[in-house]
Amino acid sequence: MDHVEKQGHLTGALSGRSLRAADWFQTLRDEICAGFEAIEAEADNTRLAIDNRMKAGKFERQNWQREGGGGGQISVMKGRVFEKVGVNISVVHGTFSEAFREQIPGAEGDGSFWAGGISLVAHPQNPFVPAAHMNTRFVVTSKAWFGGGGDLTPIMPAEKEAAVFHQGFQACCDRHHPDYYTKYKKWCDEYFYLKHRDEPRGAGGIFYDYLDSGDWEADFAFTRDVGQSFANSYNRIVRDTMHHKWTEADRHHQLVRRGRYVEFNLLYDRGTLFGLKTGGNIEAILMSLPPEVRWP
Amino acid sequence: MDHVEKQGHLTGALSGRSLRAADWFQTLRDEICAGFEAIEAEADNTRLAIDNRMKAGKFERQNWQREGGGGGQISVMKGRVFEKVGVNISVVHGTFSEAFREQIPGAEGDGSFWAGGISLVAHPQNPFVPAAHMNTRFVVTSKAWFGGGGDLTPIMPAEKEAAVFHQGFQACCDRHHPDYYTKYKKWCDEYFYLKHRDEPRGAGGIFYDYLDSGDWEADFAFTRDVGQSFANSYNRIVRDTMHHKWTEADRHHQLVRRGRYVEFNLLYDRGTLFGLKTGGNIEAILMSLPPEVRWP
Repeated sequence: MDHVEKQGHLTGALSGRSLRAADWFQTLRDEICAGFEAIEAEADNTRLAIDNRMKAGKFERQNWQREGGGGGQISVMKGRVFEKVGVNISVVHGTFSEAFREQIPGAEGDGSFWAGGISLVAHPQNPFVPAAHMNTRFVVTSKAWFGGGGDLTPIMPAEKEAAVFHQGFQACCDRHHPDYYTKYKKWCDEYFYLKHRDEPRGAGGIFYDYLDSGDWEADFAFTRDVGQSFANSYNRIVRDTMHHKWTEADRHHQLVRRGRYVEFNLLYDRGTLFGLKTGGNIEAILMSLPPEVRWP
Repeated sequence: MDHVEKQGHLTGALSGRSLRAADWFQTLRDEICAGFEAIEAEADNTRLAIDNRMKAGKFERQNWQREGGGGGQISVMKGRVFEKVGVNISVVHGTFSEAFREQIPGAEGDGSFWAGGISLVAHPQNPFVPAAHMNTRFVVTSKAWFGGGGDLTPIMPAEKEAAVFHQGFQACCDRHHPDYYTKYKKWCDEYFYLKHRDEPRGAGGIFYDYLDSGDWEADFAFTRDVGQSFANSYNRIVRDTMHHKWTEADRHHQLVRRGRYVEFNLLYDRGTLFGLKTGGNIEAILMSLPPEVRWP
C-alpha cells in the first residue's frame, strides 16, 4: 500500500475505481516478485548451467517521478534463473499534447488523462526458459478502459510450454466471456508481429485494449485474472525448464533471437514509443530490453 | 564494374549521371574494403587484447535483389580489428507508395524514383577504436540530389580521434564551399541525437541532404571527396587506436554504449525506417546493428 499512499496527493482527486486499480497493480507486483524470488531460491546451482557461484537473485526497487505528474516504481532482479526481469508499476496523469489527443479515445476534449498499470518483462538465463511479457493497465480520459495481456517468447522449441501458457489464458478468458480467448489471442498474434521480417515475436498469448463492457467490476475482475493467470502459468513454465541442459550454441541462438525482441520493442511497441515520446522514465521503459544481445 | 554491369538492365534507361554515381559508389566500396583488409593484415596479434589466434579478416559479399526493382551488394567482415563492419552498395528504383510521395521531394507526381548509394558501419573489437558510419547517395525523382555524411562514435574518451575526424571533414568541405562545414556539422549534430536520452550519438561529423547546387559536377565532386575523406581519417584513427590496451570493464562499457547505437538506428534513423517500410533488404539495413550489445 506504500506506493498508493505515497501517490495519494496524485490519486486523491480520482474515483475509487482508479485507486482500486492502482492498488491491485501494486498487489500483483508484490505477488509476482515474491514468486520469482521463490524460484530463484529454489534453483539448484549444480543443475544451472551457469557460473554456479551465483546466489539467488533479489529484486531491487527504484522510484521515479514524472515531470508532468505521477510516477512509478521499477523492480528489477538480476538473478541466476532470471538474467534480467523487470516489474514496473506506475500511476501517471496529466494532459496529452494536441498531437496525441486524436490518437487516444476520449482525449479529444481537454486531453486530460490518468493511467495506472503494471508491466513485466523477463529474460531468463537458460535458453530453454522462454522469455515473457505481461502488462495490464487502467486508463481514464473522458472514457475509461482496461487493457493488457501477456505473451511468451520461447527461444528453443517449446510446444509444451506454449500449450501451458495458452491453456492458462484460455481458462482465464473463458471464466469471463466465451469470445475473449479467440478474440484476444488473435489480437496478440497480430500485435506481436515483426512486419519487416514477416515473423511473429514468439508463441503469442492474449492482448486486449479499450475494454469497457459497461460492467466495470467485471472488466476489473477479468484484468485481475489475466495478471494472476499469467503469473501461475509462467511460474510453472520457469520451474519446468530452468534446469534444462544447454550449450554455448543454444546461448548464441538465444542472444540472436533476443535481437528480434529489441527490434520489436523499438520499432513497433506502442507502449515503448508512447513512453519515449511523452517523456516517460527511460529506465522503466527500456527495462524491457534484454541484458545481452547479438546481431552477428 | 561487375555490379554496375549486372545492373545494366536497370540503369540502362538512366542518364550518364546515375551511372557515374553508381560506378563511384562501387569504386569507393572497393577502396574502403581494401583499406580495412590492409588494417586487418597489419594488426599485431600479440598487441590485440583479444583471442590472439584470430586471423586477419576478409570481406565476404552477398548480392540481393529488390522485389520492386534493383538490388545491392552487402560486404561484411568479421575480423580481429573490426568485430563487424558492413559496406553496402545499392541501386534501387521503382515507384513510391502514395504515402511516401508527399515526403520525398519531386515524388509528388508519378512517384517514380532511382536511388544509388553506399552505406558503411564499423563496430571495432577494441573499445578505444571509435565506431563509425558513412553514407552517400544520389537520388533521382523529378528532382535529383546528393546526400550523405559520416559520423564517429567513440566509446572511450577520444578527443584526439574526434579532432582528426572533424579536421578531415572540415578540410574536405572547405575545398568545395566555405559554408559547408559549419552547416553540415550542425546538421549532423542535430540528426544524430537521441531525443529520449537527451544525448548525442557520438562525436558528430557531417550530414547533408537534398544537395542540388545547380552544378551537378561540383556536387558529385563534393560527394566523392566526402567518401574519400572519411576513409582517410577513419583508417588513420583505427591504426592509431587498434593496439590500445583495454580491460573487461572497458568492454562492458562498449557493449552498453552500443545499446545507444541500436536505439538510435531503430527509433530515429531515416534510412533504417525508410528501408524497413519500403521492403528493403533486411540484412543490408540491419547490418548497422552491433554484433554484441548489453542493456544491463
